[in-house]
Amino acid sequence: METYQCIRSRLTVRDFRPDPVPARVINKMLRAARWAPSARNRQPWQFIVIQDRDTLAKIGGMASSGGYIARAPLAIAVIMGKVNRADLDAGRALQQMELAAWSEGVGGCFVGLGGEENAKVKALLGVPEELQLITVMPFGYPTDEAKARGKARKPLSEMAHREKFGQKYLQR
Amino acid sequence: METYQCIRSRLTVRDFRPDPVPARVINKMLRAARWAPSARNRQPWQFIVIQDRDTLAKIGGMASSGGYIARAPLAIAVIMGKVNRADLDAGRALQQMELAAWSEGVGGCFVGLGGEENAKVKALLGVPEELQLITVMPFGYPTDEAKARGKARKPLSEMAHREKFGQKYLQR
Repeated sequence: METYQCIRSRLTVRDFRPDPVPARVINKMLRAARWAPSARNRQPWQFIVIQDRDTLAKIGGMASSGGYIARAPLAIAVIMGKVNRADLDAGRALQQMELAAWSEGVGGCFVGLGGEENAKVKALLGVPEELQLITVMPFGYPTDEAKARGKARKPLSEMAHREKFGQKYLQR
Repeated sequence: METYQCIRSRLTVRDFRPDPVPARVINKMLRAARWAPSARNRQPWQFIVIQDRDTLAKIGGMASSGGYIARAPLAIAVIMGKVNRADLDAGRALQQMELAAWSEGVGGCFVGLGGEENAKVKALLGVPEELQLITVMPFGYPTDEAKARGKARKPLSEMAHREKFGQKYLQR
């Protein structure tokens, strides 16, 4: 799929068909994350590919805002070293992973894991104490309903400035 | 350009040809950032498109790790509301912007701006106190030398796990 078309059409998906995501697609997603840039090229990321139904069900039960992980055929845990601005590098790797997935028809949704939840999921996955669990992001092929949803954004004129903050980049 | 090919081939670029980046490409970069996902779809981002040579030179002089901003034909300031995990959403928008740029042959490099530098650049650009300046990222067409550089990453086997942390996803 062409790059901008992929960016434009990508949807956040929480409702998945039961079909498994093939190893070929998972590998492509991991490679896409790996090619992301990071501060000083430290590449402080680790990924856990989770397909075990029991593990997915347990994480879905632990994640207060991500119960749908239990119904996904795949989730990828994104883990970062305790480096400066880890969230920024995580976001960049994650977005490359999401776009590579979407170019193969696979969608997902970021799930945040707060304090105690985070500790429980870390323990379940055996993540070392000194690393940060950023998300466990479920992925799969969207149901027809999920595919039919659009996405809403503010107009560009409300977020783009020219030369100085407050000088609109676009008039409309 | 095909999505994975764009992700794979994208380079971090610090040495730019003087050619301006056309408005069509800048618009595509802004739209790509706009279509990024964000927590609760809050879209807490603002972008300033900077092409004024004097402003670029001043920012290059202020940014201790980004002197090359002075020699770029374009920079985009990425600004976020003071929301929870702003860096994560910024990273996702930034990566979509970078990939849309690269699909048109345009590259850039993240420039971090520390405490006092950050305050100076915010003042220059008129960014309201209550917002966060994440980066001023220079963009342009890479020089031949910049294009010839590769990018190095750790092997996937050092970052990918299967089901539990420590169980290798790949054996090589």
